[in-house]
Amino acid sequence: MAVRPPLRPLDSVDTAACVGAGTIGGGWAAYFLSRGMRVRVWDPSPDAPEKLERLIDAAWPALTELGLAPGADRSAWSVHTDLAEALEGVGFVQESAPEVLEVKQRLLADIAAAAPADVVIGSSTSGYSMTEMAGLAADPSHLVVGHPFNPSYLIPLVEVVGGAATEPAAVAWAAAFYERLGKSVIRMDAEVPGFIANRLQEALWREALHMVDNGEATVEQIDRSITDGPGLRWPLQGPMLTFHLAGGEGGMAHMLDHFGPSLLSPWTRLEAPELTDRLRDAVIAGSDDEVGERTFEQLVHARDASIIAVRKAVASVREAYESAAAQAAREIDGAAEREEG
Amino acid sequence: MAVRPPLRPLDSVDTAACVGAGTIGGGWAAYFLSRGMRVRVWDPSPDAPEKLERLIDAAWPALTELGLAPGADRSAWSVHTDLAEALEGVGFVQESAPEVLEVKQRLLADIAAAAPADVVIGSSTSGYSMTEMAGLAADPSHLVVGHPFNPSYLIPLVEVVGGAATEPAAVAWAAAFYERLGKSVIRMDAEVPGFIANRLQEALWREALHMVDNGEATVEQIDRSITDGPGLRWPLQGPMLTFHLAGGEGGMAHMLDHFGPSLLSPWTRLEAPELTDRLRDAVIAGSDDEVGERTFEQLVHARDASIIAVRKAVASVREAYESAAAQAAREIDGAAEREEG
Repeated sequence: MAVRPPLRPLDSVDTAACVGAGTIGGGWAAYFLSRGMRVRVWDPSPDAPEKLERLIDAAWPALTELGLAPGADRSAWSVHTDLAEALEGVGFVQESAPEVLEVKQRLLADIAAAAPADVVIGSSTSGYSMTEMAGLAADPSHLVVGHPFNPSYLIPLVEVVGGAATEPAAVAWAAAFYERLGKSVIRMDAEVPGFIANRLQEALWREALHMVDNGEATVEQIDRSITDGPGLRWPLQGPMLTFHLAGGEGGMAHMLDHFGPSLLSPWTRLEAPELTDRLRDAVIAGSDDEVGERTFEQLVHARDASIIAVRKAVASVREAYESAAAQAAREIDGAAEREEG
Repeated sequence: MAVRPPLRPLDSVDTAACVGAGTIGGGWAAYFLSRGMRVRVWDPSPDAPEKLERLIDAAWPALTELGLAPGADRSAWSVHTDLAEALEGVGFVQESAPEVLEVKQRLLADIAAAAPADVVIGSSTSGYSMTEMAGLAADPSHLVVGHPFNPSYLIPLVEVVGGAATEPAAVAWAAAFYERLGKSVIRMDAEVPGFIANRLQEALWREALHMVDNGEATVEQIDRSITDGPGLRWPLQGPMLTFHLAGGEGGMAHMLDHFGPSLLSPWTRLEAPELTDRLRDAVIAGSDDEVGERTFEQLVHARDASIIAVRKAVASVREAYESAAAQAAREIDGAAEREEG
């Protein structure tokens, strides 16, 4: 392996390559544009430019509402069918190819070979580890997972983790790069199948499938149990902090000591870990760290204010879209009547 | 068992009893008051009136912002230490005693014996089945689970299900009563441990505990993976509809056919059910029912608008409370400096 130059300075990066321009890759392209970058896209399908243009058109009002970077230009992109051409002069590469291991392996090897030697390459994979995906790369040292969430231009979370052969400096660079762009980065030290958010989502999803399978709940009931229940708490305070608050002034310690035995209840098909002293103390210490200086009363007030604000926000969206849908239905009915008449 | 009179008409109910006035019971009291009802509380602890007054004071601004019913009076409540006295003349009873089976059994038997014969009795239990809890009641026919979520004055969801000896009419009455009060009711046909939302939450919570236990994620990373990720989608569209949209125009059918094999991946410790044709078809049909007449494009626009609105709502709450906390910290520092000086 040739000696590589140092990674380029973050503030010199003004162009990104998006390899693959489907829903996720196209979302990344729109996001990079909104942050004032230029984007070079590799996508071999003939309708890629047209689809990408539609996606950017659809995303731009949302991105504008959240705030564009100075100089953001929605048309500062080009599509290339030659990979080396797409990677020319870029300061970062985001790979968002279909979720097929062999495809990812081949493509990441080609990208690593063709990209400038001082750039980092992020993969949008939602489930493969970089150690698996990097298998064909001659030099995998700059290959990093940067896992976004759909829609990738609106959801802040990006999970960042390297593979066995990734340079730690490349992982740190990727985390800093995404953060600089306004993303909320979780940098993981170890590769875990499904990363963090997908493991949590997947546990919930599998329990939901079991319930449908056993006739215990309908799809609509499952969704409403979240949208009108815990889902209203989670945009401000995650499941751990929610549990901490449910413990009242006694917090997480009270909850674990009081409700610990319910971990043995068949409230889900997932077996709980044994609530050892070590686990108990780790969860309490983690909650205390997260809470920091905030008092119980401050947390409760913020939670309540957030639930109200979120309920109002969602109600206004429901009203706008339900009345729009009703209006569209009336127009279709009207047109049908006119045709009949 | 004596023949019971028919259940009283919903629109004649203007007084509710709250048995137990802790966080959940007190929250119910505040909510009933905000809907224009009078509330009679049974709680034997000497500081119950003072604590309830504090809880109502804290909840009232939020309830006012969400809209009070005409005639709502925050002081229309009384606390009683005698159960029969508390139940005098009420049109509904909500039991929110501590989550201890023997306590619930004894109390529900006493309530069923002392309450007016034509009223329904709802229990806030978060995990016991009514069949278990009703064991000591001479007449359990009006005993129904009405499971709320903390804070019970702000979260709309109530899960309603009867026990083996509950009259179906009492379950229907309870569902209609909560709905009339503005709650989002899920009426379950069968008793399932943990009901619906808690089963889903519990699966996620147990996966989170496993991750902490194995050093795979910190408490803060787990919370942020939800607050900055999927948690932003869930207040408008639940996990099933989210998955449907992730399938693009092909919807849930595309997702199940394409990502079905990932159910075998170790993305959580919870084993998935086998994706049989029957389960596949049930999930697709349920998603189609939930979507109704809405087009894919309408769903995507509503989702994006909701994510933006929720992000803005949460950001404004964060800013308000973080600056308040910072201000409080400055004041404390200032006071400390003055003392030192």
